Amino acid sequence: MSTGFFGDVTRIKYEGPESTNPLAFRHYNADEMVMGKRMEDHLRFAVAYWHSFAWEGGDPFGGRTFERPWFPADTMSLAKMKADVAFEMFQALGSPFYCFHDADVRPEGANFAENTRNLEEIVDYFARKQEATGVKLLWGTANLFSNRRYMGGAATNPDPDVFAFAAATVKTCIDATHKLGGANYVLWGGREGYETLLNTDLKREDTQLGRFLNLVVDYKHKIGFKGTILIEPKPQEPTKHQYDYDVATVYGFLKRHGLENEVKVNIEQGHAILAGHSFEHELELAQALGIFGSIDMNRNDYQSGWDTDQFPNNVPEMTLAYYAILKGGGFTTGGTNFDAKLRRQSLDPEDLLYAHIGGMDTCARALKAAAKMVEDGTIIRHVEKRYAGWDTPEAKKMLDGSHSLSDIADYVANADINPQPKSGRQEYLENIVNRYV
Amino acid sequence: MSTGFFGDVTRIKYEGPESTNPLAFRHYNADEMVMGKRMEDHLRFAVAYWHSFAWEGGDPFGGRTFERPWFPADTMSLAKMKADVAFEMFQALGSPFYCFHDADVRPEGANFAENTRNLEEIVDYFARKQEATGVKLLWGTANLFSNRRYMGGAATNPDPDVFAFAAATVKTCIDATHKLGGANYVLWGGREGYETLLNTDLKREDTQLGRFLNLVVDYKHKIGFKGTILIEPKPQEPTKHQYDYDVATVYGFLKRHGLENEVKVNIEQGHAILAGHSFEHELELAQALGIFGSIDMNRNDYQSGWDTDQFPNNVPEMTLAYYAILKGGGFTTGGTNFDAKLRRQSLDPEDLLYAHIGGMDTCARALKAAAKMVEDGTIIRHVEKRYAGWDTPEAKKMLDGSHSLSDIADYVANADINPQPKSGRQEYLENIVNRYV
Amino acid sequence: MSTGFFGDVTRIKYEGPESTNPLAFRHYNADEMVMGKRMEDHLRFAVAYWHSFAWEGGDPFGGRTFERPWFPADTMSLAKMKADVAFEMFQALGSPFYCFHDADVRPEGANFAENTRNLEEIVDYFARKQEATGVKLLWGTANLFSNRRYMGGAATNPDPDVFAFAAATVKTCIDATHKLGGANYVLWGGREGYETLLNTDLKREDTQLGRFLNLVVDYKHKIGFKGTILIEPKPQEPTKHQYDYDVATVYGFLKRHGLENEVKVNIEQGHAILAGHSFEHELELAQALGIFGSIDMNRNDYQSGWDTDQFPNNVPEMTLAYYAILKGGGFTTGGTNFDAKLRRQSLDPEDLLYAHIGGMDTCARALKAAAKMVEDGTIIRHVEKRYAGWDTPEAKKMLDGSHSLSDIADYVANADINPQPKSGRQEYLENIVNRYV
Amino acid sequence: MSTGFFGDVTRIKYEGPESTNPLAFRHYNADEMVMGKRMEDHLRFAVAYWHSFAWEGGDPFGGRTFERPWFPADTMSLAKMKADVAFEMFQALGSPFYCFHDADVRPEGANFAENTRNLEEIVDYFARKQEATGVKLLWGTANLFSNRRYMGGAATNPDPDVFAFAAATVKTCIDATHKLGGANYVLWGGREGYETLLNTDLKREDTQLGRFLNLVVDYKHKIGFKGTILIEPKPQEPTKHQYDYDVATVYGFLKRHGLENEVKVNIEQGHAILAGHSFEHELELAQALGIFGSIDMNRNDYQSGWDTDQFPNNVPEMTLAYYAILKGGGFTTGGTNFDAKLRRQSLDPEDLLYAHIGGMDTCARALKAAAKMVEDGTIIRHVEKRYAGWDTPEAKKMLDGSHSLSDIADYVANADINPQPKSGRQEYLENIVNRYV
Ligand SMILES: [Co+2]
Ligand SMILES: [Co+2]
Ligand SMILES: [Co+2]
Ligand SMILES: [Co+2]
Ligand SMILES: [Co+2]
Ligand SMILES: [Co+2]
Ligand SMILES: [Co+2]
Ligand SMILES: [Co+2]
Repeated sequence: MSTGFFGDVTRIKYEGPESTNPLAFRHYNADEMVMGKRMEDHLRFAVAYWHSFAWEGGDPFGGRTFERPWFPADTMSLAKMKADVAFEMFQALGSPFYCFHDADVRPEGANFAENTRNLEEIVDYFARKQEATGVKLLWGTANLFSNRRYMGGAATNPDPDVFAFAAATVKTCIDATHKLGGANYVLWGGREGYETLLNTDLKREDTQLGRFLNLVVDYKHKIGFKGTILIEPKPQEPTKHQYDYDVATVYGFLKRHGLENEVKVNIEQGHAILAGHSFEHELELAQALGIFGSIDMNRNDYQSGWDTDQFPNNVPEMTLAYYAILKGGGFTTGGTNFDAKLRRQSLDPEDLLYAHIGGMDTCARALKAAAKMVEDGTIIRHVEKRYAGWDTPEAKKMLDGSHSLSDIADYVANADINPQPKSGRQEYLENIVNRYV
Repeated sequence: MSTGFFGDVTRIKYEGPESTNPLAFRHYNADEMVMGKRMEDHLRFAVAYWHSFAWEGGDPFGGRTFERPWFPADTMSLAKMKADVAFEMFQALGSPFYCFHDADVRPEGANFAENTRNLEEIVDYFARKQEATGVKLLWGTANLFSNRRYMGGAATNPDPDVFAFAAATVKTCIDATHKLGGANYVLWGGREGYETLLNTDLKREDTQLGRFLNLVVDYKHKIGFKGTILIEPKPQEPTKHQYDYDVATVYGFLKRHGLENEVKVNIEQGHAILAGHSFEHELELAQALGIFGSIDMNRNDYQSGWDTDQFPNNVPEMTLAYYAILKGGGFTTGGTNFDAKLRRQSLDPEDLLYAHIGGMDTCARALKAAAKMVEDGTIIRHVEKRYAGWDTPEAKKMLDGSHSLSDIADYVANADINPQPKSGRQEYLENIVNRYV
Repeated sequence: MSTGFFGDVTRIKYEGPESTNPLAFRHYNADEMVMGKRMEDHLRFAVAYWHSFAWEGGDPFGGRTFERPWFPADTMSLAKMKADVAFEMFQALGSPFYCFHDADVRPEGANFAENTRNLEEIVDYFARKQEATGVKLLWGTANLFSNRRYMGGAATNPDPDVFAFAAATVKTCIDATHKLGGANYVLWGGREGYETLLNTDLKREDTQLGRFLNLVVDYKHKIGFKGTILIEPKPQEPTKHQYDYDVATVYGFLKRHGLENEVKVNIEQGHAILAGHSFEHELELAQALGIFGSIDMNRNDYQSGWDTDQFPNNVPEMTLAYYAILKGGGFTTGGTNFDAKLRRQSLDPEDLLYAHIGGMDTCARALKAAAKMVEDGTIIRHVEKRYAGWDTPEAKKMLDGSHSLSDIADYVANADINPQPKSGRQEYLENIVNRYV
Repeated sequence: MSTGFFGDVTRIKYEGPESTNPLAFRHYNADEMVMGKRMEDHLRFAVAYWHSFAWEGGDPFGGRTFERPWFPADTMSLAKMKADVAFEMFQALGSPFYCFHDADVRPEGANFAENTRNLEEIVDYFARKQEATGVKLLWGTANLFSNRRYMGGAATNPDPDVFAFAAATVKTCIDATHKLGGANYVLWGGREGYETLLNTDLKREDTQLGRFLNLVVDYKHKIGFKGTILIEPKPQEPTKHQYDYDVATVYGFLKRHGLENEVKVNIEQGHAILAGHSFEHELELAQALGIFGSIDMNRNDYQSGWDTDQFPNNVPEMTLAYYAILKGGGFTTGGTNFDAKLRRQSLDPEDLLYAHIGGMDTCARALKAAAKMVEDGTIIRHVEKRYAGWDTPEAKKMLDGSHSLSDIADYVANADINPQPKSGRQEYLENIVNRYV
């Protein structure tokens, strides 16, 4: 029943660190226990349907490089051929999850009704495949950016009909996600932003976006969808400025619209970097703010100024990410999605496998290193000790509101407080990290 | 009574656009009416004490280049000589305001008590000078970043004694600002951030910073200080990451700590750029969020990755800034501060004058151009028209909560909504701007 | 005979600075004399065929937004319809020049022979249009980056057949340019670079690229083409790293391959910025190195990390560019090409006109301001005076080789040389620039 | 005879990967053989005198944080105390080399003669210490950027007396380096650049810089100094633009002034990144151009836009650097210098040790991984195979000049060449790298 797309590849096996088989895992071993939990249950890998099966290899200076038998997938039959290959790859990799946009999986219809029918048909097809394979849906989402109707935004479009079309489309995508048992539903507002302030009313667009998200949350509860609603921050690209700029910006938006307990974030490494942050910054901030949800584990090239969506490969960097996640208790509904695309010169089916194997293996190494960091506890204890002074009664009074600014000034003056700096020990701590990676 | 520092320069005069006198204004004419208000009252210029009178011209690869008779100003008498020259320059420029940090104006003492005494003495000296000259204080602030005690943060320091020392110091600086009739009080959290997450507890530090700001706000009300409390966002430098990253981040922080109606932002052009935004973005966002306060009108070099704090000189860019400000109703307690420093090769006293004259002149041109944009109204009407569809009843139902996501989906399906994109007209609008600048 | 694409627009007229007609020039007045030369002859404007007539409005997250009757132009008849509209726009704008790639103007053939035939046919068509309209060709070029055969480079491809195909294609494009009387021939090496060093041999690729360019130069001489061969530097995008990174890099490459007297550079503002330079830096450097040729006057968004190719609109910035050009004697074979594309939301035919009118008007203002800077001479004299010390005999000996390092050390020791710094006067000079813009 | 500065620390030992002793090496084992050579002889570590012993911990927003008994080292006796501690640390670390600027090691004199005397005295002191400890000098250099006389450049200063002073100073520093048996002499042109083109004559400054370097090279030969003259590229900071921007720029400069066989480059990772390149890019380019000399192995923070000069810690990244170096045959006179400074919060003497131990250990891991990559040869063979088509006779004719552009076009037309793209295999190759690191 194989499509033959991947030749005779069936299931990628774990062969251990010494293997030189490019089609084997060297580190990812689904059943291996890490901190008392199976590696698979920690990492919760997902393959992104769009990059691996719908993207054609184009860039702003050149068109399609990939040749796939299902391109252009503008008929239901080609869409199903694509699905067959996709699920074949999920199984070959042993990926427990996948993610998709409506536009990745169904032919584009002439109008909303046709889009909906197409989506429903493919959802039925996916449901059968999920059942047959055991692969599950990490999250569904609506593509509200590719069609030209969204060129000026979806929820934030100056034209209310676009808002309506987008809202209707999201409804169908939440329905699809719910039906497929999705663990989360994601909103990425790639065109929710602006190209120029000269034609933009920031306040109106914020109101529209806040309403849109409230509609989504209300609908989720109405239909009993238990998954998490996630916003994926990104600072720019495609637009010059996107409203979901970074974690801090999304937090402010949620708080403004009363949604900080309803919505969490899906953080992408590459987007963190485009926003001027490290990945671990965005992760730790989201946890501190109580809105951490899921991750897109795909990196940006540090020398490129656009979203390169590359498979991850730097274990020390990834270790800091999983360290942040493990410290915060790990994923609940979220997981590790590879929102990563092949380089456009990686033409062959096996390149898809190499890329995912490499990504999964490096995540596994990073997870194990991070677990050792947590279990060892040297760094955590160092941090606790650094702030230990705040446990004194005098210090607590400053934080709990019993001391006013004048009280504190009196204290400083009377006790002649003259604090002496202590080493921040950054290099020492960086050396400790290198014990584990 | 002149110090002689600026030679025989007395008062810089307005000579009109054709003047080639480098020591005359060509565009800034304090009493000229713009949109029914004096130019001086629109722009509310302030000179920054630190860059012009305390900075020595050093950079990370070299030390002092400037030779000033008051350096190192470590005695009260040198501090007063510095003040004499400073006020002489404020008068020569006709600058209605100035701004200072405690550390700019008083010798560094051995402890808190001595710092306080030194500050009080210089505040008395300033008070007399303000009265004699009519120059006013736009804002005061505390330097919580230069002394080594603050190397690991002030309010966010792991050591509560540093928090206490900083709080006590801010008290004295608010007192000073209050006494001098300051229109605002600014907090710039240059060391409120981190160098490495490995030694940092983000959540604790956020709690500390939130408490600190609440202490400040409470104290302001207690002493009856009517000025605005302002936070100045900056993404990084000196630290790798600063908590007051940009306007959106500060908004979220204020909202989290219940301060969004108490505190506003002082936005610096250079910091906007370092954070990946345009200046007008930060301004318009602050207005949309209701937290716009004041500006630091100093640019960053687009090719340099650090805070270059240069005097502004690009009128079309500055016009977009004042356009945002004027659309929002202009300054209330805020103003236009030049947080700008001479290039370190600009050694001479007259360089200080040239720099400020150039900055004031370009601001004046930008203000006049922005006023024409507002008065002409072409762009404002274009924007209103772009969103006019939202005034229809069906559109309003989507925003006011009467329609659910399902209702909207039904509407789209039943009416076969199929929105067609309309030109965003960016180039047309950019051409319109070029009519005014 | 009009295509009707631009409605009833015929010729855009100069109406002077007070005009509010969006379809009139306010500053560009072709026959107006500037420094003794017609404005048209100074600026030598060219329209870029690709962005205005072949680009469909796509970006990495969405497809075609523009609807043009000639899309997809995959037949000769559609290609000619496109040409009809293009020349209509050249005339409407009074643009004396245009530029094109082979792939912009002819349908893509099944092989080299068909491409050549298609190109020859359209070249004949263009030749007649040039004769009918008086519009001339500023430069021709070959598109060696869009077709998937070039995904791994053209001249620098690991496959020699791609080198051969590219070389053959360039031959046909030089032939076309020669036949159409082109003033220059451009090479932009968008895929001459690498995605990863792991699969790349830098030295081999340099050898290939050097040979390729020598082949081109030899061919130019053989056929008697008198135009200038130009390389267009760009640091990256589409590839991670491009070999023609910036002017300094191209200079080294030319020198290494003995081509520094044969080839010049076409400098694009946006590419200068992507490479970390100001536009005027690249211009002045090219002039200092003797390789300045032509410009692409399209800007990058300072907040975006990719090539945004926007129409220019900031007169003070553009003034510094034309100042550099005028100081160096102005264009010879080169000109001002708008390698600029509409924002993808600017859907309408008139947006094409607005964009070019705005670009031409701002260039005209910048040229006039730059001419005043040159004629006035204040800045030029300031610079000369700054270096005047080098005219002394002792200084000359250090430069002309008569003094060795020891001689100089003796001189310093014996004369106790102790140089004192002098003000660099940056702010003063920036103020002077603002007199003209 | 110990200074006691590092307490009772004597010699840092290799204890193997399992050690948790923060004052032991876990990977650096000087005598361990790697590819037939001792690790020490491969890596050739050097400690940078300036950052570790002269830098005070200041940044643009705060002053000295470090307390060292030898500060401010403005007497010969303090300078010697500093030297005592420095050599103690070189020995403790087992660092075979060190590097210094004149200004790091001697008190600043009132004039050239005093500087020279001070330098000579300390050079004698160093000579005795070198002999006593076996520590050698990797390179010497002159600080031509900190003193205010150099604010407008050294060799490129508009004032010829500054050129003279700089030249005389370099003479004394080459003499010192020669006397101490230095393996190289470095020139870093931190102020050889400009702040604004408005006051700059690029061509004159290039002439001055070319002459300066020729004077240096002539002098080297005259005195029989056998070390390599190295230029250290950096794009900017302290100046807005530095002439030695990157490797490609330096190559062009050398070629222009006839120095490409006399001078090589000292490449710093952080400077590569500031210039928009990866470190391995700069290394491989320098090798391809024949000008590779030495490295400064200190990283930049990817989220900071200035030179952070941090100790290296990312082994996968460093592996690519040593892979480039080993492929090219390894160091000859060059080595691995840590031009790295402690974070300014790392106050304690042991922080100096932690930082260097961490840097040395990660270099050792990277070297071993790189050696495995070279020895295994999988990637090298992959690359060779990728270009194998160029070995055919037809391909060679294109490269060796026997085929003209017309010949190639004929070949393509006649043979109907239609090359098909082949996978670039980037992800596969990245996975292979992860086998070694
Ligand atoms: Co992405
Ligand atoms: Co993503
Ligand atoms: Co600033
Ligand atoms: Co500021
Ligand atoms: Co471009
Ligand atoms: Co271009
Ligand atoms: Co550096
Ligand atoms: Co260095």
